[in-house]
Amino acid sequence: MNEVVSKAEIARRHSLTLAGVTTTEKNEALLLIAAKLEEYSGVILDANRKDVTAAQNKSVSKALIDRLTLTEDRITGMVDSIRLLTDLEDPSGKTLSESRRPNGLLIKKTAVPIGVIGMIYEARPNVTIDAATLALKTGNAILLRGSSSTIHSNKAILSLIHDALSESSLPPEAVQLIEDPDRELLKSLYNAKGLVDVLIPRGGKELIDTVVENSRVPVLETGAGNCHVYIDAEANPEMAISIVVNSKTQRPSVCNACETVIIHEDWAQKHLGNLIEALQEKHVVIRGDEQAAAIQPGIQAASQTDWEEEFLDLIVAVKIVPSLDDAIKHIELFGTKHSEAIVSESSGNVEKFFTLVDASVVYHNASTRFTDGFEFGFGAEIGISTQKLHARGPMGLEALTTVKYQVYGTGQIK
Amino acid sequence: MNEVVSKAEIARRHSLTLAGVTTTEKNEALLLIAAKLEEYSGVILDANRKDVTAAQNKSVSKALIDRLTLTEDRITGMVDSIRLLTDLEDPSGKTLSESRRPNGLLIKKTAVPIGVIGMIYEARPNVTIDAATLALKTGNAILLRGSSSTIHSNKAILSLIHDALSESSLPPEAVQLIEDPDRELLKSLYNAKGLVDVLIPRGGKELIDTVVENSRVPVLETGAGNCHVYIDAEANPEMAISIVVNSKTQRPSVCNACETVIIHEDWAQKHLGNLIEALQEKHVVIRGDEQAAAIQPGIQAASQTDWEEEFLDLIVAVKIVPSLDDAIKHIELFGTKHSEAIVSESSGNVEKFFTLVDASVVYHNASTRFTDGFEFGFGAEIGISTQKLHARGPMGLEALTTVKYQVYGTGQIK
Repeated sequence: MNEVVSKAEIARRHSLTLAGVTTTEKNEALLLIAAKLEEYSGVILDANRKDVTAAQNKSVSKALIDRLTLTEDRITGMVDSIRLLTDLEDPSGKTLSESRRPNGLLIKKTAVPIGVIGMIYEARPNVTIDAATLALKTGNAILLRGSSSTIHSNKAILSLIHDALSESSLPPEAVQLIEDPDRELLKSLYNAKGLVDVLIPRGGKELIDTVVENSRVPVLETGAGNCHVYIDAEANPEMAISIVVNSKTQRPSVCNACETVIIHEDWAQKHLGNLIEALQEKHVVIRGDEQAAAIQPGIQAASQTDWEEEFLDLIVAVKIVPSLDDAIKHIELFGTKHSEAIVSESSGNVEKFFTLVDASVVYHNASTRFTDGFEFGFGAEIGISTQKLHARGPMGLEALTTVKYQVYGTGQIK
Repeated sequence: MNEVVSKAEIARRHSLTLAGVTTTEKNEALLLIAAKLEEYSGVILDANRKDVTAAQNKSVSKALIDRLTLTEDRITGMVDSIRLLTDLEDPSGKTLSESRRPNGLLIKKTAVPIGVIGMIYEARPNVTIDAATLALKTGNAILLRGSSSTIHSNKAILSLIHDALSESSLPPEAVQLIEDPDRELLKSLYNAKGLVDVLIPRGGKELIDTVVENSRVPVLETGAGNCHVYIDAEANPEMAISIVVNSKTQRPSVCNACETVIIHEDWAQKHLGNLIEALQEKHVVIRGDEQAAAIQPGIQAASQTDWEEEFLDLIVAVKIVPSLDDAIKHIELFGTKHSEAIVSESSGNVEKFFTLVDASVVYHNASTRFTDGFEFGFGAEIGISTQKLHARGPMGLEALTTVKYQVYGTGQIK
C-alpha cells in the first residue's frame, strides 16, 4: 500500500468522527492553528528558505520564486485569515429544507461535510494553510499534495497544524500531507474512488487539465478566464472606458481580468479613440480587428490566437461588431464561461446578454474584477468554479459541503 | 466529424436559445409531445415489436425483454407523466438568493439550465421519453444514446418528439438521438468537454462504472444500493419486523431495497425468531453470521460476498452486533452510501446513526423504500445520486439546473 492509499484510508476513517464535531470545537482548533503559526513563524520561514534556495539553484522563473516565498508579513496575513474564518457561519449541519409528507414522514435536507478532499496544487505554501483550514472549518478531512519544490515549507506547516490539532478535540489525521514526490502516486489519488470524495486542483491550466483528464474521483474544476467586456451602442462613454480600464489593468495577471473588449460599431465610431487613449495611458498594448484599425489607424492587428488567449498581461484584443448578437456569438465561441460584462443603457439588451451568455457571472455596468468570494460577501474563497456541476462562480464554504436527507418516521412502510 | 460531435455542436448552439424559452412555451411543447405519443402510439408499438422480435431472436434474458417491451398501457403511463410534468414548478430562472453589497452591486444567484445533457442508457425506451421531457422542462438540450437493441423504438419516439417540437416554439434539435450503434462513438461523448456539460448514465453497475472511468465530461452518477436496516437493542419488535419485511420484500429488485439486516444482540436474543418467521412467510432466504445461527439454528451461513452484494432478490443477510458502533462500522465497510435505516427508541442512538452513517438518505423508524423522488415530493425523478457533488439522493428537476450569478452595477470598478 503506497502513501496515498494508506493516508486516504486514514482520512476516510477520521472523516466519520469529523462529521460529528461541533462548530465551537472546530473554531477552537482553528484558533490553535493560528496561534502556532504565529508563535513558530520562524520555523516556517527557515524551512521556506531551504525551498527558495533549492528553487534558485534550479533557476526557475521569478514568478514561481515569488509565489513560493513566505515572509513574516505573508504569515501574518494567513494567521489573520484563519481568525476571520472562525467568525464565518459554519455551513455543515445547517437544515436546508424540511417537509412533512402526507404519510407523516419528516424529511430534513441537511448540509454535511463532503468527507475527504484531495487537494493537488503548485508551489504555493499559502494554499497548504488555506486548504487545510477551510476543510477543517467545514468538517472535512483533507489530503494535501503540493509541489515537491515546497516540501520543506509544507512539512513545517503540517507539523505545526498537527501540534495544534493534538491539543484540540479534532484528530491530527484530519490534515495529511503526501510527502513522496513520485508523480506516479498521483495515479493512486485519481483512482481513490470511495476513499476520496473530491479532488480540487489549484494552479495552471496544465495541472487542472491533467487532473480532469485522469481522475475517476469527481473534480471541482477551477479554470481559466478569457473574460470579455461588451460595450453596447448607446453605452455611457465615461462608464464604459472606466470599466474596461479597470477590468484590464487593475490586476492583469488574474483570471477575472478582461482579455477582449467587444464594441458595437456605433459606439466605436464615436469613442474608440478615447478608449484607446485611456488604455495606452496605462501601458496596455492594443490588438484590434480590421474594423478597429479602420476607425483608429495604427492599431496592431489581432491574430486568431488573440481572441482565444488569456493574456494575463497588459494586452487587450479589440473587436468591433455590428450587433449585440454578434458579441454574444463571439463570447460563445471564445469565452471560458467565467465572467462576462455588458456596458449598456438598454435594459432589453442587458436581459438578452444575461440570458444568452453562458458564464458563471454576468455583469451589467460593472468591472469583471468583482468575481471573487470576498467581493461576493462569502468571507472565504475555495476558488472560482468555471464548471456547472455542484458549484459555479466564486466558491465559499458551502462548496465544501454536500447534503444528507434525514428522514424521521413512526413506523412508515411503503 | 462523427455523429456525436456534429449533434453535440448542434445541441450546444440550441442550448443558448433554450435558456431564454419561457415556462409556458416549454409546457406547451410538452403537451404537444404527450398528444403525439397518444395519437401515434400504434407507430411506436409497431417499431417496438421489431426491437422485441430482434431481441427474442438473439435469446436475451427475459428481464431485458420485459424492460424493452412497450404496451398501450405503458405508453399511457408515460403520456400521463408528461402531463403531470407540466404542473411542476420550473426551477430554471428562479432567483435563489439576492444580496446588495456595500459598494452598491446587486448580486442575484439564479438557477439556469445546465446546457447540454448527454444520456447513456440501456434497453429502456421509456427512458428516451423521460429524459427528453425532463430536459425540456428545465430548458436543457439533450443527446440520447440508448442501446442498439431499442433503436427502432427510439427512432419512432424521436420522430414524434420532433414533429411535436416543430409545432412548438422550441427547436426540434433540443432533443437528438445518436443512431450509430458503434461503441467507439462513446469515446467522442466522453471527450465532448465544452460541448456536453454533463453525462448521466442510467443502467447497471457496469455501464455506470465504464462512463465514470472514461469520461472527461462531469458525470452525474446514480449508483447501486447495498442498503441496511439496523435494529437497535430496544427497538419496538412489531415495528422493526414490519420495516425489515417491507424494505426487503416490497420490491426486491430495486436499489432502495434492504440487503442486510444488522441486529443488536439484545434484540436478537428476544425477537430474531419472529423476524425470521415473518421473512420466511414472504419467501425470503436468510443468510446469517455465526451468532445469528447460534440464536436461531438452521440459518444458512453468510459468506463474505453476502455482505458486499446487492441481491436484488428475496435474499437477506443477517448480522448480529454487540453495539451501535459495530453496526455503523459494518455500514461504513459495506454500504454504498444510498439509504440506511435505524429502528430505535433511543434518540441519542438515532442522532449518532444520523451523524456517523455516510449515506444520501438516513431513516429513523421507516422503510428504506421511500428513497424516491415522488415519495420525497419532487414530482419527478432523474435518478438517485449516490455521489456527493451537485446532487445527492433522489434528484428532482433542480438537479438539471446550475446557477448563474447576475450582477447589476452602476459603473462600479475595483
